[in-house]
Amino acid sequence: MPAEKAPKLVGITVKKSEDMSEWYNQVVLKSELADYAPIHGFMVIRPLGMMMWEQIQHYFDARIKSLGVQNAYFPLLIPESFFKKEQEHAEGFAPEVAWIAQDENAESEERLAIRPTSETMMYDMYSKWIRSHRDLPLKINQWCNVVRWEIKATKLFLRTREFLWQEGHCVYSTHEEEREDTLRFLKEYQRVAHELLAIPVIMGWKTKGERFAGANDTFTIEGFMPDGKALQMGTSHDLGQNFSRAFQIKFSGEDEKDHLAWQNSWGISTRLIGAVIMTHGDDKGLVIPPHLAKNKVVIVPIIFDASREQVMKAAAALEKQLHEYNALVDARDNYSAGWKFNEWEMKGIPLRIELGPRDVGNNQCVLVRRDTGQKKIVPLHEIKKVVDEELSAMHHAMFAKQEKWVKDSLVTVSTMKEFESALAQRKLIRALFCGQVDCEKALKEKTTATSRCIPLDEKPHKGGACIHCNQPAEWYTLFAKAY
Amino acid sequence: MPAEKAPKLVGITVKKSEDMSEWYNQVVLKSELADYAPIHGFMVIRPLGMMMWEQIQHYFDARIKSLGVQNAYFPLLIPESFFKKEQEHAEGFAPEVAWIAQDENAESEERLAIRPTSETMMYDMYSKWIRSHRDLPLKINQWCNVVRWEIKATKLFLRTREFLWQEGHCVYSTHEEEREDTLRFLKEYQRVAHELLAIPVIMGWKTKGERFAGANDTFTIEGFMPDGKALQMGTSHDLGQNFSRAFQIKFSGEDEKDHLAWQNSWGISTRLIGAVIMTHGDDKGLVIPPHLAKNKVVIVPIIFDASREQVMKAAAALEKQLHEYNALVDARDNYSAGWKFNEWEMKGIPLRIELGPRDVGNNQCVLVRRDTGQKKIVPLHEIKKVVDEELSAMHHAMFAKQEKWVKDSLVTVSTMKEFESALAQRKLIRALFCGQVDCEKALKEKTTATSRCIPLDEKPHKGGACIHCNQPAEWYTLFAKAY
Repeated sequence: MPAEKAPKLVGITVKKSEDMSEWYNQVVLKSELADYAPIHGFMVIRPLGMMMWEQIQHYFDARIKSLGVQNAYFPLLIPESFFKKEQEHAEGFAPEVAWIAQDENAESEERLAIRPTSETMMYDMYSKWIRSHRDLPLKINQWCNVVRWEIKATKLFLRTREFLWQEGHCVYSTHEEEREDTLRFLKEYQRVAHELLAIPVIMGWKTKGERFAGANDTFTIEGFMPDGKALQMGTSHDLGQNFSRAFQIKFSGEDEKDHLAWQNSWGISTRLIGAVIMTHGDDKGLVIPPHLAKNKVVIVPIIFDASREQVMKAAAALEKQLHEYNALVDARDNYSAGWKFNEWEMKGIPLRIELGPRDVGNNQCVLVRRDTGQKKIVPLHEIKKVVDEELSAMHHAMFAKQEKWVKDSLVTVSTMKEFESALAQRKLIRALFCGQVDCEKALKEKTTATSRCIPLDEKPHKGGACIHCNQPAEWYTLFAKAY
Repeated sequence: MPAEKAPKLVGITVKKSEDMSEWYNQVVLKSELADYAPIHGFMVIRPLGMMMWEQIQHYFDARIKSLGVQNAYFPLLIPESFFKKEQEHAEGFAPEVAWIAQDENAESEERLAIRPTSETMMYDMYSKWIRSHRDLPLKINQWCNVVRWEIKATKLFLRTREFLWQEGHCVYSTHEEEREDTLRFLKEYQRVAHELLAIPVIMGWKTKGERFAGANDTFTIEGFMPDGKALQMGTSHDLGQNFSRAFQIKFSGEDEKDHLAWQNSWGISTRLIGAVIMTHGDDKGLVIPPHLAKNKVVIVPIIFDASREQVMKAAAALEKQLHEYNALVDARDNYSAGWKFNEWEMKGIPLRIELGPRDVGNNQCVLVRRDTGQKKIVPLHEIKKVVDEELSAMHHAMFAKQEKWVKDSLVTVSTMKEFESALAQRKLIRALFCGQVDCEKALKEKTTATSRCIPLDEKPHKGGACIHCNQPAEWYTLFAKAY
């Protein structure tokens, strides 16, 4: 018997349905996904959170490489003059930029910013590298950190002053190719959300007021969180020739004349981890979607002194059998089996295997699913097949549950009264909208709701009127409060 | 026939043996490994350079994870007070730190630095996370960018104001465990150099004057470059309790008393890519060691209009057969086969396959090794086996060549006259040395040579005298000019 007792496990002490904000913070901190850094608005991503980001990187990196994208790395610092070259871009990012102290940079007259995004730095280089249509398309991505000096309240993973992301920046000789890829990368983001994160998202385009600073069109994948707030989970921007004009990215065509290039940029970030926590977590803590989890199974041997050797041997054999799922064996002394169950539930491991002396005697084990808590007795020789089936079933169940939730939350409204009532009920609102910047601003001030997107599968609606300003409106647009 | 001619390929115009510095810059720029950024001292890592870094990451990340290390991510910015907590560390890094402009950070009294290394930020967090011996060992690594505002002349990959690296930071309950791991990670660095980069390195420890600021001992892998300069390629630091004392990283032991923890830190960086270029490159350009190359084979079909279809079909079949080597087919029109040979030689792809209509007719191809230029006619059905053998032979030949070079360069000297003569001949010098900081400083000022390390396999030498100051000296120490 252990001489020393384990520390008390402090679980999640608030229900998700009662106070989602406090519940969220507790899950992030107690599951050890991340921690507050000692600098205001910054976070530390702990190993469990980093594991999720690495899984996303691994999955998405292979996808984009198969589409001909290559990784590169551009400087952290950007000269002030670069920002100013594209006016809308400069205005959009100016309030959020952190600058290097001038005396550190005596050899330059210019202020240097920490990158909030890398369009300007990358496109300055592109203008030197691209000469001919033979150099196109150029498809480059970087995985890096960016800093945006947020003034709004920060929240771990969802809004922090530094975050990790990927930014893809491609250049094409024709608008058609560029536009096609802009949407292809958007679909790749949807694939990440659906296949890896088990989160249904709506693909659509942003209104003018919500576009990326410097883009002709911004496409988005929007998620809808359990508290009735939308979350922008990834964006792909059709930049047209705005930046190629500003940075003089020109190529000599087959016609031997010079042409301005066409460009897109697209990004997803560690914010996706916040979406996973909010979407799938429950009152016990985190639930990691099976395809996102690195360690998909934890084996908890039930240890008594008399049968220790026998049980540990069986656990090791199971671990080996479940190697491709990166199964863990929790063989820690001083911790009871119950304590371990609670901890791994809080940390969201998809499947738990309980293995006691009686199980070993019967050549079986108990398999427990994290999302439903369902227990199943499984013969040891069938474990690999059953684990595989359960992981797949769990993924589909988690996705289907959310898909139903989003579907049930969607309400089409035709008056401002209905709009406000639906918003109070935390619905995802579909309404005819004019798309004008001023109208949207006024609507936001009145209701706190923002336009999320016009779904790609919407058709234009002739002769409609805007729900807010009554001016002509062609598109049904989604509205919600948002993160 | 192509209507449009390919641009002229501008190869390397200087011999490596005649002006290695200029040769190096040309290889980096013309092979498109990296480019100068528009900010002084910064670089852009282009896809070919990034591919090398990703291969190093992939290899090393798997190794350290197998040793129980987990990845995490800590903030880019570090409060000034953190630096000051460990005095030697603060003094060592102070001249190189870039600061954030104060007005950007109005809510804090404190200046914020861009991390030059993350000991202080990480150990502040560790002091909150570590409570008990059960929390140890804690083994955390991060892959990130760091900024050191170098005053010395910068050089692409070798010394830039921002670079990419990994920094491992581990905490232990005993000095023995800590010291053992400090050396284990050093051996892992040697493994990266030997197995992946095909560069022989000497493992050793640094003199006091060359230690990491804040360490009790710094271990290093030292490479010896073709111009007779040494290159520090990775370091592992025994930090003792210096930082745990400064940051109060304490754990309650099994004796239920509080103890200061033991720590090490260890890092390698994108500098390794510079080592690869210098060590293996030749007058034609880059030579990528086979195990480091992602694309290990390039297939160049020799295209004539009459036999195009037949040759392209055979090339596609070869590509498929050589899938695991990420073989590329260079099917570009407008470029002659000779042009392509020169370009891929400049870019250092280990093996080239030439495939013309006559080859296809004879069910064979021509295989060319990048390091030796040797050509071999290979039956198509044997290509996979032969490629595998040639890659392995190439790795061993490249390593052996360098190993002989280092061995032949090593000279043991016993007088300052011999020392200076050996240095003029660009040798790696072995001499008895007292290890005193002042003596080393004077020796460096006189000769420009620095101590590189005391190799791990040296034995203490009783009754010796320092080659420079004639004081008692116990250890044979290596000296050279260095990058």
